[in-house]
Amino acid sequence: MEIAAFQDVLRRAYVERDTERGVDGTFRWLTEEVGEVARALRGDGDLVHEFGDVLAWLGSLANLAGVDLEEAAARYANGCPKCGAIPCGCAFVR
Amino acid sequence: MEIAAFQDVLRRAYVERDTERGVDGTFRWLTEEVGEVARALRGDGDLVHEFGDVLAWLGSLANLAGVDLEEAAARYANGCPKCGAIPCGCAFVR
Repeated sequence: MEIAAFQDVLRRAYVERDTERGVDGTFRWLTEEVGEVARALRGDGDLVHEFGDVLAWLGSLANLAGVDLEEAAARYANGCPKCGAIPCGCAFVR
Repeated sequence: MEIAAFQDVLRRAYVERDTERGVDGTFRWLTEEVGEVARALRGDGDLVHEFGDVLAWLGSLANLAGVDLEEAAARYANGCPKCGAIPCGCAFVR
């Protein structure tokens, strides 16, 4: 699935209620779903389901913020955006 | 860009250092980048850049957790996974 198509289906499905809720409430939902990934990582919950929900809330937030996720992802299309290498040759990030 | 291709380039670029850092440290980076989205939403920082970084750290975490982001996103491919409608017909989510 194209990233742009994913964002577009979220727009068509949710933009009215996302707009009604607003940026702050949608951000709060994103963080709640990030927390559910944390919980699933310790075995409580379905990882695929929770990663999908994070992607979806991130897409809803991007729609409200006017951000094109395809453009956002493109920085990584050719590997590390800092060093341009695959594998990344930057100093190790802890 | 396909979601699977995005996850694959992250794997090729970062999987060694992601593995060395581990799931917990990578999760911590994800939340740091979510915080940078919060900051960019109030005008301090570049939104496209920060959304891209969240996508990238989410992809790195998915690689470590063995989660296929394409599969995760597929729940939303036909609209709301709960009601199956576009636009979503579920009760409003605050």
